[in-house]
Amino acid sequence: MRSTIALLTDFGWRDPYVGSMKAVIAARSEARIVDLGHDIDAGDVFGGAVFLAAVAPYFGRSTVVVAVVDPGVGTDRPIIVGEVGSALFLAPDNGLLTLLPIQSLRRVESSSLFLPEGSNTFHGRDRFAPVAAALAEGAPLESVGPLAEEMVRLPYSEPSYQEERAVGSVIAIDRFGNAVTDLEARRLRLDRTVKARVKNSTVDRIATNYQQLPSGPFLIVGSRGTIEISASGKSAAELLQIARFDRVELVWS
Amino acid sequence: MRSTIALLTDFGWRDPYVGSMKAVIAARSEARIVDLGHDIDAGDVFGGAVFLAAVAPYFGRSTVVVAVVDPGVGTDRPIIVGEVGSALFLAPDNGLLTLLPIQSLRRVESSSLFLPEGSNTFHGRDRFAPVAAALAEGAPLESVGPLAEEMVRLPYSEPSYQEERAVGSVIAIDRFGNAVTDLEARRLRLDRTVKARVKNSTVDRIATNYQQLPSGPFLIVGSRGTIEISASGKSAAELLQIARFDRVELVWS
Amino acid sequence: MRSTIALLTDFGWRDPYVGSMKAVIAARSEARIVDLGHDIDAGDVFGGAVFLAAVAPYFGRSTVVVAVVDPGVGTDRPIIVGEVGSALFLAPDNGLLTLLPIQSLRRVESSSLFLPEGSNTFHGRDRFAPVAAALAEGAPLESVGPLAEEMVRLPYSEPSYQEERAVGSVIAIDRFGNAVTDLEARRLRLDRTVKARVKNSTVDRIATNYQQLPSGPFLIVGSRGTIEISASGKSAAELLQIARFDRVELVWS
Repeated sequence: MRSTIALLTDFGWRDPYVGSMKAVIAARSEARIVDLGHDIDAGDVFGGAVFLAAVAPYFGRSTVVVAVVDPGVGTDRPIIVGEVGSALFLAPDNGLLTLLPIQSLRRVESSSLFLPEGSNTFHGRDRFAPVAAALAEGAPLESVGPLAEEMVRLPYSEPSYQEERAVGSVIAIDRFGNAVTDLEARRLRLDRTVKARVKNSTVDRIATNYQQLPSGPFLIVGSRGTIEISASGKSAAELLQIARFDRVELVWS
Repeated sequence: MRSTIALLTDFGWRDPYVGSMKAVIAARSEARIVDLGHDIDAGDVFGGAVFLAAVAPYFGRSTVVVAVVDPGVGTDRPIIVGEVGSALFLAPDNGLLTLLPIQSLRRVESSSLFLPEGSNTFHGRDRFAPVAAALAEGAPLESVGPLAEEMVRLPYSEPSYQEERAVGSVIAIDRFGNAVTDLEARRLRLDRTVKARVKNSTVDRIATNYQQLPSGPFLIVGSRGTIEISASGKSAAELLQIARFDRVELVWS
Repeated sequence: MRSTIALLTDFGWRDPYVGSMKAVIAARSEARIVDLGHDIDAGDVFGGAVFLAAVAPYFGRSTVVVAVVDPGVGTDRPIIVGEVGSALFLAPDNGLLTLLPIQSLRRVESSSLFLPEGSNTFHGRDRFAPVAAALAEGAPLESVGPLAEEMVRLPYSEPSYQEERAVGSVIAIDRFGNAVTDLEARRLRLDRTVKARVKNSTVDRIATNYQQLPSGPFLIVGSRGTIEISASGKSAAELLQIARFDRVELVWS
């Protein structure tokens, strides 16, 4: 038995979509149901992928993560399930799992696991939820469908790391206005003077906590182990007009 | 024992109201606690009723659903509990259960189940939560109070269906901008050319998924089994200036 | 074993922070995980303190409440755990527990309980979550660290109560626009004519429910047992331009 079902969607909390998924799960499984979040922007598959990459390393016991950001619902896009450590990630095959270190992948095709007479417009309730419940209740992974070799991947360029220069991009702006990049601190020499260039600004101070440098923007190693551009008590993203996907260049001199 | 308590309120997440209800429930019951949503507009009883109607069919095991959209708290409006399938719906008697197929109905009057010295302004915490916990822990339904014959119903006109014409209304605008109507697809002939008139617009295309018709609005059978007016990747409600309660007329020619 | 872990943060639901904490907890504990809320304004420690004071009286069984509003993360501010009734409150030592009747207090210093190689910027995931899970799984309270005598307290003046006059302040504006004060009803003579002065307005009517006085603002005893300034179906705070921390004076004549 997988003891936890964790939900990530772009359904928001106002509409009955999240509640409907939970009703189906509760009817079919004793698993603990936890909300990862439902406020991914509508249809923002990349935002969902970045979110999943942040939480995936921390699921240590058997868990089924159900991720539904699914503008293609009802088309012939498959549903897939990927194994990462001891967790399973159930998602539409639209790139949502792009940033995860998938160990094995299956297509979910066993329609006997779906709700009978399900809709064409809400697979979260009619397919994802009952499949997650079945897996949580001990259905063997093979029972959902055949192994898959490929899945859809979002176009995403890994950062490049050179001796005197590294180039990455902003992958998220968080609630606090931190501009989170994909530049991994362990691959950078942060003991030497470094300049970050983003948009028309240069940031050349490094902090070890958010209160150390009270005024102006600074670089900090964030909770993903990557460089963030931050400011104490205010939004660095607003301050420097940084948006997601902006290019960030680190230069050592 | 009822294993799940599911919460729907208009309390939002910023204030301590939802947390207070959960504290009371957690203190008195081992039940799984799940959030259906807390972002019903403040005092929007009809919005709550429409939400409940969407999730109600999916609670298959014993569940206590607690619905608190309760502008009349502290007046003499009763609290009621309605049975739908194997779930119980606990709510103020203000129309919140209007759209549910209630099988049996009771008034919740056993004040020994309430928190002692409860407030007059927060029955969610002081009455609904402890009653839900008691029911989840196995208190017999009869113990909450006497059978009731009637409950308050919101003024709501069922759609009308004729050979060449059907008339219903928009019951919700969802996060994606879909205008959800109450016109049930199984009562409509969707194989023939149909025109929907809403506000000053006419929509005459039918899609089977949200990406099929990339530009402009279309009709689609949504997750409630009813007609929705939608648009691919944008808000049909904004596009056509549709609001809740707008009349929708389907005409076959 | 403590059966419930309850979370209060200022992380919002959009970012992966809440989900990361839950992943860590789910990996290490069977406890029921409940959300108190994650929409405390970013860095608003007083708002968090007021929230905790509202829910604290209602946790009756063993619960670990994890409160993370933590702008000083990564500085040398300690983490503390306070006992209130049968619940534990885990929080940064920054004033978040100011309004709770703490019975015993410890500093959380046993780094063996933290995630190995944790970040400097996200103690919610790397320290609070695993410590909460350990406590929920039965780790003795002494194992987290030594007894502490003091904790940081926010500057906050208790209301003053005199024969003909009481002075307090607005501690929260809730979703419904109620201006919640800290003036405790049980210390006031509400059977006599009373006038409340706040900003440039005077409110002299008392209601026992939110619908009793349809037009204009009134006083009511709210769910904390304190005076609220409210208005039926609209926001009293907007109507009277009341903000948090505004002074409220009650005068009997």
